[in-house]
Amino acid sequence: MKAKSDGGPLEIRPIGLVHCAGEEQAIEIFPDYAEALLRIDQAAELQVLYWMHRLSEAERGILSGHPRGDRSKPHRGVFALRSPMRPNPIGSTTVRLLRREGNTLLVSGLDAIDGSPVIDIKIVS
Amino acid sequence: MKAKSDGGPLEIRPIGLVHCAGEEQAIEIFPDYAEALLRIDQAAELQVLYWMHRLSEAERGILSGHPRGDRSKPHRGVFALRSPMRPNPIGSTTVRLLRREGNTLLVSGLDAIDGSPVIDIKIVS
Repeated sequence: MKAKSDGGPLEIRPIGLVHCAGEEQAIEIFPDYAEALLRIDQAAELQVLYWMHRLSEAERGILSGHPRGDRSKPHRGVFALRSPMRPNPIGSTTVRLLRREGNTLLVSGLDAIDGSPVIDIKIVS
Repeated sequence: MKAKSDGGPLEIRPIGLVHCAGEEQAIEIFPDYAEALLRIDQAAELQVLYWMHRLSEAERGILSGHPRGDRSKPHRGVFALRSPMRPNPIGSTTVRLLRREGNTLLVSGLDAIDGSPVIDIKIVS
């Protein structure tokens, strides 16, 4: 693949999916990426990058807003917020790893919704 | 755009570029996204997501390795590392915002290399 730095689109491949059922938060890693989980059970905290898949194309075009939608606070650009509405709807959360069951990671503290594609996991501690 | 959660590719649009010259680290935001910088000068720390554009297609397929390349340490999956080699070569760093000059942010602490496409900025503090 040629190096791209010309502003053209870049391609992300989902590596898994978020499943939420009640209090349970699970990250299912697709079989093609199972090797990337080797020794992950030794981690306590993980950074999870995921795709906020419910955002529409129009919402990707919203570039400013009020912090947490609070109209008493001055308008800010989305790069000065953590709003889900942003040009590239990537969420980043640090979660606690509770345990691994096969290719599934049981976690707590994930703010993704059920069905969100997972795009990366990095160790924190 | 239809919601995608089927494992198909997702499209990222670069919002800027990293420029490094000596000690100077700058993030140039493309004019189309300038509105997203509104009031960012009030931030002290920013999380920057960028694309590690020098990684080859083959390097995206490497799923495990030794921590920091140290062969005395046991092999780990890339999701249990912070290695740049990973299926989606997205880097995440928290930087200090020194100042804004027009559509350019002068920062310190960024571990991206010159020419890396920037894909998101989120406020930390």
